[in-house]
Amino acid sequence: MTAHLPLPVFSPTLDKTLQRVDIDLPQERSYPIWIGQDLWSNPNTWASLPKARLALVVSNTVVAPLYAQALIATLKRQYERVELLVLPDGEHFKTWETMNLIFDRLLACGADRKTVLFALGGGVVGDITGFAAACFMRGVPFVQVPTTLLAQVDSSVGGKTAVNHPLGKNMVGAFYQPEQVVCDLGALQTLPARELSAGLAEIIKYGPIADMAFLSWLEDHLDLLLQKDPQALAVAVKRSCEIKAWVVSQDEKEGGIRAILNFGHTFGHAIESGLGFGEWLHGEAVGCGMVMACELSCALGLVDRSFVERLRTLIARAGLPTRAPDLGLEAYLEHMSHDKKALAGEIQFVVIDAPGQASVRRAPKEMVSKVIAHCVAL
Amino acid sequence: MTAHLPLPVFSPTLDKTLQRVDIDLPQERSYPIWIGQDLWSNPNTWASLPKARLALVVSNTVVAPLYAQALIATLKRQYERVELLVLPDGEHFKTWETMNLIFDRLLACGADRKTVLFALGGGVVGDITGFAAACFMRGVPFVQVPTTLLAQVDSSVGGKTAVNHPLGKNMVGAFYQPEQVVCDLGALQTLPARELSAGLAEIIKYGPIADMAFLSWLEDHLDLLLQKDPQALAVAVKRSCEIKAWVVSQDEKEGGIRAILNFGHTFGHAIESGLGFGEWLHGEAVGCGMVMACELSCALGLVDRSFVERLRTLIARAGLPTRAPDLGLEAYLEHMSHDKKALAGEIQFVVIDAPGQASVRRAPKEMVSKVIAHCVAL
Repeated sequence: MTAHLPLPVFSPTLDKTLQRVDIDLPQERSYPIWIGQDLWSNPNTWASLPKARLALVVSNTVVAPLYAQALIATLKRQYERVELLVLPDGEHFKTWETMNLIFDRLLACGADRKTVLFALGGGVVGDITGFAAACFMRGVPFVQVPTTLLAQVDSSVGGKTAVNHPLGKNMVGAFYQPEQVVCDLGALQTLPARELSAGLAEIIKYGPIADMAFLSWLEDHLDLLLQKDPQALAVAVKRSCEIKAWVVSQDEKEGGIRAILNFGHTFGHAIESGLGFGEWLHGEAVGCGMVMACELSCALGLVDRSFVERLRTLIARAGLPTRAPDLGLEAYLEHMSHDKKALAGEIQFVVIDAPGQASVRRAPKEMVSKVIAHCVAL
Repeated sequence: MTAHLPLPVFSPTLDKTLQRVDIDLPQERSYPIWIGQDLWSNPNTWASLPKARLALVVSNTVVAPLYAQALIATLKRQYERVELLVLPDGEHFKTWETMNLIFDRLLACGADRKTVLFALGGGVVGDITGFAAACFMRGVPFVQVPTTLLAQVDSSVGGKTAVNHPLGKNMVGAFYQPEQVVCDLGALQTLPARELSAGLAEIIKYGPIADMAFLSWLEDHLDLLLQKDPQALAVAVKRSCEIKAWVVSQDEKEGGIRAILNFGHTFGHAIESGLGFGEWLHGEAVGCGMVMACELSCALGLVDRSFVERLRTLIARAGLPTRAPDLGLEAYLEHMSHDKKALAGEIQFVVIDAPGQASVRRAPKEMVSKVIAHCVAL
């Protein structure tokens, strides 16, 4: 177990372009997150990766046409062969069947235990590719090359990989750490507005659970972020990765504190499952889920109403839904009972204990039902 | 990294009924292997397992009718609910589709992160159930309850789990350690002769790679083993587990020495893939594969012909095939090129460096071809 340093103080002024955040883990599982401009086309970015004959870039139909060729051209300087596999795009393809396409390709092109996988895309590509890397020949190296804001600030960092099961999101997966994460901020410039907002949801999340100074900064800079201001995006991505790294380095496999990163996710997963995967983006469901979890924290007497309204306002400003879809109470409760935090049939929630501090708690079913009814009727 | 003790000296006299062998691993992954009579029906066997509300026993159509009810009755003393899932029997069901039946059942019966899985069966049930435990909610506890000789001496020990891919055996899997392994020797009494022989293949394997005294003992006691003499079986199972534990404790994830446990497996996997999974039992393919790997060691000038003949004689006496099936040379080479030890398209083999000592080496393609032709023509 590493001794835990306090969370570094938030410093919104970046002194140079290339930023580095480290995930500190035992047994050679530590790795860097690189954040900056034009990183993918720079051969230095990839120079420290393990040597191999073959690399496989996994992407999707939306991202591959934009970035795959440039990445492959750079990677060809250090791998004899670089193959590209283009998966269908979307959360409803986050299945074992899609992951199997990766195994098929790896075996067809003579991959071995040293073959390196590159996940070029958003959270779905990262989660599937990471899980495939964890399982193929019981583990090959992989690199996260996140192209969406959500993936850069959350899903590509920390080694959670998974596919969905019809009865629950991310039910089948592995903790498996990448060799490195390379966030090229330039990619965010092509991101559709809806995806930008989805990423902002996970960024906003870090405020109420860990850092109120960052939340205030976000309130002040949200308009710049929505305009894709490079400097503001750099600050937001770096701070998000710093907070995530701080949490993950303390609790790699979610035995404790790491669960706070799921703030908004218990309600959010129920929304995603209930509407059908892909109907709402993951970040949209988390945005709404955070409002619901904050309402629950208020109902539990942990935070006051003004805090709920403050968060709701910011989430709405970010272009995210704050009114819960009407799935019916039973559907919410049923989907939440399959949540991975549930124990012995009891649903558990990440709640805000006080602004900037979160924990996992149970809540009476009647209270949860009331919160759902309230958030649906908003 | 644990400091490595030498392999304990082989002592073929057991002083008491219940035997314990420990797998020593870092970070709370150590666990005991229990070997003895009437262990499954003894509540003490399970008393130290993690607490949970729900346990799922995974078995197959052959084993469940023999042992599932007794095991479940005992487990019910410590779990509120014990569910049984019966999988189809056989290597060709060692697929993702079969594993998915486990996820379906777990989610249908409200499993959570504490739910304990019990793998009651041979190597296929153990490998699928272990891999399912590794992946379900990114990891739940599981227990190996091996019912075949092969599973008791090899596949249930050491944390290798996997399913097959049409292009290769065990291509998709995880290193994931059980909470404990419980070898009830009584189960071997119902084992068909063919399965007994298959298990003897993996037992014989430990001689040439690590312990010539054990090989001599096996030559002297093979008839007793074939008659299922309980005392002889106890000695063979314990010594096999001791050698496997010694290797795995040094190299959990097969970065080095652990590969020697694959002696006979490169040729053996080619036979299994080439004939179609399940045509020959895994142990039968390994028996024949060991003869082939020994012939290759001889061709490389590492061991003399008398050693090859000595091993061939023992393998034949154990009721195992020693003549390689005629798949055609190209099929052998093609299947072996997908072996997990292959690197950059070069097949690697576990060879005997000297009696009782093994290593991983490349061999010229012409030499390998000659060995195959020779072993097919025997």
